[in-house]
Amino acid sequence: MSSILIQRLCIIGVGLIGGSLARALREAGVVGDVIGAGRNEQHLQQAVELGVIDRYELQLSQAVEQADMVVIAVPMLAMQTVFEQIKDHIPDECIITDVGSAKAQAVSAAEKVFGQIPENFVPGHPIAGTEKSGVAASFAELFKDRRIILTPTEQNSKAAISKVRQMWQACGAEVQEMNIQHHDEVLAATSHLPHMLAYALVDTLARMDDSQEIFSYAAGGFRDFTRIASSDPNMWHDICLANSEALLKVMHQFKDDLQLLINAIEKGDSEFLKQTFTRAKQARDTYTDKT
Amino acid sequence: MSSILIQRLCIIGVGLIGGSLARALREAGVVGDVIGAGRNEQHLQQAVELGVIDRYELQLSQAVEQADMVVIAVPMLAMQTVFEQIKDHIPDECIITDVGSAKAQAVSAAEKVFGQIPENFVPGHPIAGTEKSGVAASFAELFKDRRIILTPTEQNSKAAISKVRQMWQACGAEVQEMNIQHHDEVLAATSHLPHMLAYALVDTLARMDDSQEIFSYAAGGFRDFTRIASSDPNMWHDICLANSEALLKVMHQFKDDLQLLINAIEKGDSEFLKQTFTRAKQARDTYTDKT
Repeated sequence: MSSILIQRLCIIGVGLIGGSLARALREAGVVGDVIGAGRNEQHLQQAVELGVIDRYELQLSQAVEQADMVVIAVPMLAMQTVFEQIKDHIPDECIITDVGSAKAQAVSAAEKVFGQIPENFVPGHPIAGTEKSGVAASFAELFKDRRIILTPTEQNSKAAISKVRQMWQACGAEVQEMNIQHHDEVLAATSHLPHMLAYALVDTLARMDDSQEIFSYAAGGFRDFTRIASSDPNMWHDICLANSEALLKVMHQFKDDLQLLINAIEKGDSEFLKQTFTRAKQARDTYTDKT
Repeated sequence: MSSILIQRLCIIGVGLIGGSLARALREAGVVGDVIGAGRNEQHLQQAVELGVIDRYELQLSQAVEQADMVVIAVPMLAMQTVFEQIKDHIPDECIITDVGSAKAQAVSAAEKVFGQIPENFVPGHPIAGTEKSGVAASFAELFKDRRIILTPTEQNSKAAISKVRQMWQACGAEVQEMNIQHHDEVLAATSHLPHMLAYALVDTLARMDDSQEIFSYAAGGFRDFTRIASSDPNMWHDICLANSEALLKVMHQFKDDLQLLINAIEKGDSEFLKQTFTRAKQARDTYTDKT
């Protein structure tokens, strides 16, 4: 019953996100050819074998030929190079979107390469993922009932925004729009800061003398708490530098709040401790009730 | 095929841990009567209705009568009061154990009340739990394949240690022994510190102007990361004060490490960031492979 929305889809970076998008669109029956592109031929070959993409190109200039939709799903700091390589080859009517966690950086990379923000580049960010990476971890349901944030620019045509929106809706996602700066601040708080804390905690423990024994006594709560520390280090290196301004702001805020907690424990300030823990529990319980 | 290990079990504090222990021992068929005790009659009544305990007493002096095993499963800072109330009523041969997260504090509370560390008090701590609390959340399998750490004192008889060990083994748990200080340091690192970070993070976000919107964009990783912030605030108030020395040490260490991460992001120190994230990912992946 579905009709073709995208005749030729080019996915640059066929990992967890790019691969899951291809799978979801294929399953929804809304995509014609799916061309993968990237730097690692072995991974692309694997994507073909898994049926995620129809074929692949190692040259981005060739990968984008005749595409009507290009999705850039590479680590944040590789985006500018991708724009450089596709700039002179992308068909006029082709729409470009990305899945990066830091939208100001994505737009700035495009602007640097194209001289201005391209009319057909609609920045996007699916609020979905797992701690795993690579095409083998991809699955069609990753975006089902999840939010996709688009941060359209003034240059974007309504048609371009609409097509990107339809693409994500075909994956079962709920699409919302937000301005770029607000997106970067919200994601710094809810995603980038927690990843920094999880990495920092596991690393603090890993560098202790008796770290092996310490980890052996970690229980289920620790496993959940540190799950995101198993995420791809290179991807997160890029994200924390690409969104450094908003991230540093919440990291400083957190560090100050942690100091207040330390002070309260040192002083035995029961009221402060109970208030803080209660407020946190209420906020967390309320949030999970709604999701 | 099992035989009765405990004729009369008295559980003081019939919540998630106390209730799950009663359920597990009943299911294993190794316990005779189970008497619950505590301050909240409604909760105790619920425990009877759920079949977790046979009956309850509001007076601890009566609850411990004729018991051969008393398990204290109350918040850490209530332990001293419990010892005071049972001191003159506990049968001579009765064994006492507890489930508190801070063993130095538990032993110190006993010592204060009894004048010396009682021969029959074997301090213990199950490395198990969920973010839920209360008897309604209890289940017999909570301790299955989980570790129980006993921190026996020099005063303990081998027979007393052995009986507590057998009790936990009957629940399907693996019992290990550790010295008190080491237990408190290991738990500060793997459990108490993560709880402080989860509470502090959720509270930092909850106090932001647009907190409701912020939480609405939190994804699955955030849900897992903050699960432990839904834990009982009063219980954690007690734990962080009861184990403040070891906890403050790792909190300061973590804060210093977080500052190094902030510095690296500010300076764009790619090498530091990649090394830290990679080390953390490796440690976390190795730890979860083994559990």
